[in-house]
Formats: sequence, C-alpha cells, structure tokens
Amino acid sequence: MSFKKRTHTCNELCKNEIGKTVTLNGWVDRRRDLGGVIFIELRDRYGITQIVFNPTHSKSSHDVAKNLRSEFVISVTGRVEKRPDGTENKNFPTGEIDLLADEIEILNSAETPPFAINEETNANEDLRLKYRYLDLRRNELKNNMILRHKMYQVVRKYFDANNFLEVETPILMKSTPEGARDFLVPSRIQEGKFYALPQSPQTYKQILMVAGLDKYFQIVKCFRDEDLRADRQPEFTQIDVEMSFIDEESIYKMVEDLMKKIFMEIMNVEIKFPIERISYKTAIEKYGSDKPDLRFDLPIETLTETVRDCPFKLFSETANNGGVVAGIKIENGSEISRSQIDGLTDFVKKLGAGGLIWARVTENGIQSPTEKHITKEYFEKIANQMNAKIGDLILILFGEKIKTYSWLGNLRLELAKRNNLIKNNIWKLLWVTDFPLFDYSEEEKRYIAMHHPFTSPNFEDLHLLDTKPNFARARAYDLVLNGNEIAGGSIRIHNSDLQSKIFSLLGISDEEAKQKFGFLLDAFKFGAPPHGGIAFGFDRIAMLLCNANSIRDVIAFPKTSSGTSLMDDAPSFVDKKQLDELHIKLK
Amino acid sequence: MSFKKRTHTCNELCKNEIGKTVTLNGWVDRRRDLGGVIFIELRDRYGITQIVFNPTHSKSSHDVAKNLRSEFVISVTGRVEKRPDGTENKNFPTGEIDLLADEIEILNSAETPPFAINEETNANEDLRLKYRYLDLRRNELKNNMILRHKMYQVVRKYFDANNFLEVETPILMKSTPEGARDFLVPSRIQEGKFYALPQSPQTYKQILMVAGLDKYFQIVKCFRDEDLRADRQPEFTQIDVEMSFIDEESIYKMVEDLMKKIFMEIMNVEIKFPIERISYKTAIEKYGSDKPDLRFDLPIETLTETVRDCPFKLFSETANNGGVVAGIKIENGSEISRSQIDGLTDFVKKLGAGGLIWARVTENGIQSPTEKHITKEYFEKIANQMNAKIGDLILILFGEKIKTYSWLGNLRLELAKRNNLIKNNIWKLLWVTDFPLFDYSEEEKRYIAMHHPFTSPNFEDLHLLDTKPNFARARAYDLVLNGNEIAGGSIRIHNSDLQSKIFSLLGISDEEAKQKFGFLLDAFKFGAPPHGGIAFGFDRIAMLLCNANSIRDVIAFPKTSSGTSLMDDAPSFVDKKQLDELHIKLK
Repeated sequence: MSFKKRTHTCNELCKNEIGKTVTLNGWVDRRRDLGGVIFIELRDRYGITQIVFNPTHSKSSHDVAKNLRSEFVISVTGRVEKRPDGTENKNFPTGEIDLLADEIEILNSAETPPFAINEETNANEDLRLKYRYLDLRRNELKNNMILRHKMYQVVRKYFDANNFLEVETPILMKSTPEGARDFLVPSRIQEGKFYALPQSPQTYKQILMVAGLDKYFQIVKCFRDEDLRADRQPEFTQIDVEMSFIDEESIYKMVEDLMKKIFMEIMNVEIKFPIERISYKTAIEKYGSDKPDLRFDLPIETLTETVRDCPFKLFSETANNGGVVAGIKIENGSEISRSQIDGLTDFVKKLGAGGLIWARVTENGIQSPTEKHITKEYFEKIANQMNAKIGDLILILFGEKIKTYSWLGNLRLELAKRNNLIKNNIWKLLWVTDFPLFDYSEEEKRYIAMHHPFTSPNFEDLHLLDTKPNFARARAYDLVLNGNEIAGGSIRIHNSDLQSKIFSLLGISDEEAKQKFGFLLDAFKFGAPPHGGIAFGFDRIAMLLCNANSIRDVIAFPKTSSGTSLMDDAPSFVDKKQLDELHIKLK
Repeated sequence: MSFKKRTHTCNELCKNEIGKTVTLNGWVDRRRDLGGVIFIELRDRYGITQIVFNPTHSKSSHDVAKNLRSEFVISVTGRVEKRPDGTENKNFPTGEIDLLADEIEILNSAETPPFAINEETNANEDLRLKYRYLDLRRNELKNNMILRHKMYQVVRKYFDANNFLEVETPILMKSTPEGARDFLVPSRIQEGKFYALPQSPQTYKQILMVAGLDKYFQIVKCFRDEDLRADRQPEFTQIDVEMSFIDEESIYKMVEDLMKKIFMEIMNVEIKFPIERISYKTAIEKYGSDKPDLRFDLPIETLTETVRDCPFKLFSETANNGGVVAGIKIENGSEISRSQIDGLTDFVKKLGAGGLIWARVTENGIQSPTEKHITKEYFEKIANQMNAKIGDLILILFGEKIKTYSWLGNLRLELAKRNNLIKNNIWKLLWVTDFPLFDYSEEEKRYIAMHHPFTSPNFEDLHLLDTKPNFARARAYDLVLNGNEIAGGSIRIHNSDLQSKIFSLLGISDEEAKQKFGFLLDAFKFGAPPHGGIAFGFDRIAMLLCNANSIRDVIAFPKTSSGTSLMDDAPSFVDKKQLDELHIKLK
C-alpha cells in the first residue's frame, strides 16, 4: 500500500505555486458538495488547503470525493490554481489558491467522531480524554502542544548557552518519604525490596554538585502519590536546576534571564526586570498569601494595634489573644451594593470567618451597621490608617492570625475577580523570600521542613535553631507568576554536621537519617561546595502561557483526579503471574 | 557563611589577566609544599589553575594553605602573575600564569577519598559506584557527561529544526506485557490496580500520529524488568521518533541527516552517506549476525551446494537435512599457527560447534588434516568458490542453519579481534532491512513479533500471512554502528483490521487485544494516517562515541546487574504502612 507522499504541507501553497502539480496528504476537515463540484478543506498539523473536485476535470476523482466524510485521510494530487476573484480567503495563508484534484487516494476512512473537531468544543472532558487523539486534533490543544514544545527548546537552549550540563537522574530510586507519598515499584530480582519514583531529583542534583559538575539542569518527570486536587497530576514535569559556588543573587539573576527569554521568544512580551522581591512575612501580611497576585493592588492593612483598646470586645479580645484585625480598602467602593456586600460576607463565612465588618466613607462621615459597637472614633482611626477617602469602602476581618490573613487573601482575589481588576495579558512576576525554615505540624506534633530538609537556614538565624527554631528563616525563595507559584528553591546545606542537626530538629533520628540520606551525609564529607538551586513547575508555566484552564490541557496524556488515564484505562488489573514474580500479593 | 564568589573559572585565566585581582573557587587537586612556598593546583569542572601561597606575600593565607588537603573546597583571591620563565606549562590553558594568593577561605574540608581522583583509576567498579560523586570528578567520567549533554542538545536541535514536536508521554501507563516484563506501580487510589512503566512509548507515539501531530520526537526514559546482562540497565534512554505520511525512505533520510549532525558536531567526523543497506537475510548469511560489524570484511561463504555430494558424510548429511556448511577465508592466513587454529577450535566449540575444519592453500595445493575425508577435489571446489589464493587459510563450520551462521558470525568477530583487523576511529553505519515479521518461539509454541506487534508486513508478502507467516517480511529496519544495534524501527500498521489480524497470528485473542490495545484499535477507526518511526538507544550511542567500555560509564547514576544503586542502596525495604496504603503485602 504505497501512496503518493506529499510534496507540501496544507499550510504552504500560495500564489508562487500556481500552475504547479503538487500532492497533499491530510484529513478531510470540511466537505461541501455543490452538486456539480465538491470542495474539501484538507487539514494537517500545519494548516488548511481547499481542494476542488470538478467532474469535468477528473470524473474519477470526483467520484471518490463523493464518498469522503469528515476525518477521512487522503492523498490528493492536482494543480495549484488561483481562486476566482472574490472568493479568496485572507484568513488562511493558502486562501488565494485552490488545488484542482487530478487524483485522489483514500488512505484511511474514519467513523463519525464522538465530538466535532472544532476550535471550541463543549464536549465534556471525560469524553475528550477518552478520545484524546481526536481532542488533540483541535487547534486549541494542538497549539498548546506546540507552545510546550517551544518552551522545552527555549529553556534548554538557555541553560546550554550558560554552561549548564543536562544530566539525567534515575527514575528508579530509593524510597525516602518525607512530605508527600512515594510511588513504589517492587523489585523482582531483590525480593521484598522496592524502588520509589522520584518526588524530585533533589538528592541527585546535590550529589552532582558534590561531583563538581558545577551547573546542572534537567527537564524531568517527578511523581507524587497524593490525593489529586483539580490542578495536580500524579506525574508532572519540572525544570530542575542546581548551581555551585553561588548565593541567592546568582539564582535570581539566572532565573530572571531565563524568564526574559521565555517571555520574549514564546510570548513576544518584554518583562520588566529585576523582578520585585518581598519577604514571606510581607506577602502574608500585605496580601494574605505566600503567592500573591500583584496584577492588582488591594493591600491588606493590619489594624490590630489601632483597635486594641476599642470598646468592641471582639476586636480587643482578638488583639489581646495574639490574633489579628485587618482590613482591605476598596477605592470608590461606594458603587458596591449592600447585596453585593452580603455576597462577600457569605464568601468569607464559607472560608470560616465569623463575619465581615464593613464601613463606607461618605460625605457624612463613616457609615457602618456596626458603628454602634466599634464607635465612630475607632472607625475614623481605621479610615485614617487606611488613608480612606470619601467614596471608599472598608472591609475588616479578625481572628487567629494565619487564618485571618488567609481569609483576607482570598477576599482580595475574590474582589479582583468580581470587580474585573485583572487586566488581560499582564504578566506579574514576584520573588517571595525569607520563608520560615520550619512549619509546625499539629497532626504529626513535630516540625516539618517548609521547603525541604536540605534547605539552608539563614545564617543570621543559626542561633535560633536551638532556642526558637520556628523563628529561623530559610534561604528559600519562590517565584510567583500572576498569583501562581511557578518555581521554588533554596540555598542548600553543604555541611554534614549542619545537615544532621536539621534532620534531628525535624525529628528524624540519626539512624533513620543514616538509612535514608546517609549517602548524602557521606558525600558532604568529601568536599561539598556551597550550592543551591530551584525547580520550576513546567506544566503550570505552560498552562499560564497558554491561558489554559487546567494543566490537563497542556499535557498530551493527562490523568483524571482519580489518577485514571481514560484513553487506555490505566491503572488496570494485572495477571497474578506478574505479582508472583514481584513477590507481592493483594491484601 | 557568605564567601567570595569566583570571578573566573579555573580554566580561564591567561596572559590577558596578568595583574588583575581575581577570585577562584574549586577543589584542591594537588598540593606541593616546597618548604617556603606552597603550590596548589585548584580544580573545577572547567580546568586547573595553579595557586601560589607565599608567606612573604601573605602569611595568613600561607598558614591556612598548610592545612589544605586533597579535595578541600576553597575560595582564593589573589593577583594573576606571569609564571617565571621556564616554568610555563603548555598543556594547560592556564599554564602561563599563577595566582598569587592574598586571601583564602576553606569552604569545606574533605576526608581522604577512598580512591584517587585521577584520569586513570584501577579502583574496582563497585567502589566507584558507591562513591559516584568522587568518580564523576575524574576527567574520564566528567567528559562522558559533557559528551552526553552535547548529544542531547544536538539531537533536539536537529528535530526542532526539522519541524518535529517534542511531546512527553506518560511514565505511569497501562501494563501490556508483550516481550519483556513490565515494572509495575501499585495504585493507592484504585485498590488492586497497577500502572506499568513504559518499555517504550510505542502506543503513545502512534496515538500522536492519529492525533495529527505529524512528526514527534522525545528523548525518554524506558524501563524493562529483565535479568540484566552486562550491557543493560533496568532504565535506559531512548531517542523516540515517529512520522506520518512517510515510507522507509523518509525514515532513512531523516536518520542519516541526524547521524551526519551527531558525528560532525560532536566528533568532528564526516561520515559518508548514504548509509549502506543490506537485508536481514544477507546479514545473517554473509556476516552471521543481524548487526554485522563492517569495519572489516571477512565475509562468510555458504558452501552447502558445493559439498552436497561430498564423500565426507557430515557435510552431505548436513546439506541434505536442511543444514548449512559455510566458511570464512583469511587472506594471507598462513602466518596463523597450528596452535592459534587450535585456539579458534576451542572458541567455536565453546559456542556449541562440533569442531572447526580448516585448510591452507599452499604452493603444493590444499593442506588440511581432514583432506582424507573431504578429498582434494572438494577442497579445491571450496577454494575455488571462495576465490582462495596461495597463502590463504580457510575455516569451515557446519550444522543447523541458524546456529552455524551464528558461530561463523562470532568466529568472524573473534578473528578480527585476534588479528587486529579493526582500526581505531572508524565509524561504520549500516541499515539492516527486510527483517522477518515473526519469529517462532519454541518456548511459547507460538509466533512472536520479531520487532513488535505494530510492525507492518511488507505488502508484497501479505498473501503469506495466512499460509506461511514465518516467510513474511516486515517493513522493519535496524541501524547498526560498528556492530552494535543503535536504532530500530518500522513502518506501522495503521489499519484496524490488519492490526487485529496480526494480533491473532501472534496468538493474542480478540478479547486480550481489546483489553490491552483496544484504544489503539479504536483510534485506527477515526482516521489514522500511514506512519512509522524509529527509536535510538541513547546510552549505547553515547558509549560508542565516548569509547567507553560500558554504558555504566555514560550514565550519571547507573545500577549494577542486580539492579542495585550502590550509592544510595536502592531498592530498599519500605515501611509496612507504605505497603498497606497500596493494598499489597509481601508474599
């Protein structure tokens, strides 16, 4: 079954080729039978070309064309002709010509697709995932794949040009669960033992620095066996980077140059540099989030001190119990109606807040349903501190510190959404720095690493490790794009003793540390350089650049939230023989 | 613990920088204490620079330098000075200068390494694997990693420039064992079900062609749970390629252009194109191998017909029982001694051959220990057919067809080795084509796919599928480099009915086919284009280009033949809690 191979793609022919005989291969996108003449829009990855089957020119081709249906695969040979005046289509690069068919061969037929291969589809996602090969024919997903392809190339070209070495790290590694759950792989040769899939190549990239490779990068699959949230996948792609003999500034510079390239070469957008930096503490207190969206302002103002002596008991008690009273000012918020404010109250109550206190600054002074409790005097102090002007609306929440800032952070995003404060095509990058080294886990009753256990403490805070470890800051940094964390990293510990100390603060016993990470502690004894790095969420960045709604739309073969691949039905049951060989059985 | 960051690498400083004050960071490679002055060769990934610690210049630095030992990590600041006349070292780019130390800081100390970080090491491989971070500091391994890095970039640049799209396919896929064993990954969310790690992204890349992506490539990890031979790894890297609307010639062209780039840009070697092609049948009959090494000639000559009526029973019986009598002629083999021939006899006997028949062509006619049995007449016929001249040596084996050619293929390689017939730096590429579609497995009592079950039969042989399937040829091809298979591929089936028929010939029931590959059969019903592809063994190619002895030497973190990573001791035992969550237990 040899066939006539294409001489051109379906996006190539224009006036220059008029008169030439060419062959195209592709899919029938549309077919119009005008009685006498049949028109086919032939589609391939590159574009569309219109084919004309005229029975007076080639009866046999026209006869075959009668039987064509959508998504049939054909090879057509014919002559490129100028379209009749007035029928040109300027929307297509090939819109000035037709291909007048001499010959046609049907390479494959097609059943009627379960959904139309259109730019926009309202087919439900499960159906699209099951027939992924059809969904990927749609321009939207195809273009996402093309952008993703470009991202790979731009990223690697950048690192190559900057003397980074691409090194592949193992996928079959050792299980060292710390944080998320590992996916395990039973060993057949070594009965009872298991490999784990990497949650990240963290230890390997640090080992590569000890090995002297100096600058490493890799675009690499990582795996986490978590209960999947909407925007997570069990396997995901990371741009993984590590450098030796550097500090935070070296990382910031390297990342900013990379971002410059990505935005320029893929989006043709020039981003302003340097990227703004704020500390974790400021991010939380000013935006209620460790990944604030700075495409709009709406900062949070902490009012705790201002209202400490307020007659309103809920305020003073909150203040005196270590809680927080804080608010957001909406400039010219007078147009926000009472019922809209009730909607916001419902919104924060769903998050867990007790209620929303609000006040309007009017020509007649401050007006609020709670003005009796809080008093005009305190409302004026608040308005003063927030620099509120006539026409502004003030929203206030109070309660336990972390929760209150988080509610306000959410409220801030909700306000931006409801009031359309976020303009299109704005790209706002932000460094968040000075993360705490530890987080206290109420569940596990121990400190856990905020970033990961290899993160270096800030050296100014070393003295806190023994006394107030929860106050120690880490040499960690996150990169945020439009309110999404797109990268995170740190300067690492490169000293065996300090690393052991951190393990012990994390409640990891010497024995456990040795068993899990002994090779790294050992490696640090043979001349480990100062080093640090970062890892970027490739899928997340692709999603943002594609303006996609979900990372599933930028992954060729994604899984659902239950970890199922609907196309091929993975995971699946396997033969008992396979399990026997692996020395395991089902419980 | 901030430190002075380097201003240059250890390979950069030359006469141009004389007089400048610079900072270097790196490892102490060598230290010589000449009483008064201490010399350090400081090493980083890029090179070596000599540091001079002179107590009259900086006593404090000299004092610190006294304590330096091999592999200590230091930061040194000092002035670049011209080396005294006569002490320049032309072997180093930095050999014209010294760095006269003003300041030194020890960034990390180092215990004495278990083996010296030398160019050549005789440390045993297990030790080197355990301390991989030290082994990777050796120039040999470091340079292998650098070559590998270059290979990634050259390969991707080539495919990108040729309009291929890089697409990531899933690592967590469905188990469809057919051929090698799958590595399995238990699902936690879906009790009793398993993912499998891909043996290759074969089905996905075909699905991408059905999806219309036209040209796909990926450098991708693949996994096979096999008993490891010396030169295999449980996870390995493949350059995976698939194209639509093409035939074999399109693949050959694409691969040849890629090889041209690889050899030119990495090895600076110009390879002659087009690559020679031979059929599988010819490869076996002429070289006794489906991956012949054509860096030397020594072809096999089949003598079966010539000796069919020979009085020597073993020859005539072999011929009449469907066996083969075949030989190799060694030109000017008269210098090969009797005891060397005995060595060759031992060699072939170990392979399973009954014995080696040999004859010398001398001025006095043919001389052989078996001349009484075979007779001068037949020896002369043989010598004639083989075009043997005075001084040549003829070696003959006989027996079952496949085995005999295989013995001769091995003998051919052994002769090349013993007689140094393979010159250095010769790169001989070869296409082997027209593989059989099926192989009969005596073990499983069924046909198995020689390449894989998605390989298209040669259309001329379609009629054989129902009658003599073992005679049907496949549209499959292998690329061979210096006797190593470095790539293999095929034109695929793109028709649902033909694919079903092949599955049934392979003894895969309709039900099993539907359960395992139903999604592919379904996909073929919605407009699958003609397509085909190839996959390259990345590690193997890197090994050959590095002139390494093992693929372990071109993989950053390889595993031993029992699948162990000696550095971190993977695989390992895991907590019962982990297994409980996965709904499995040990047998």
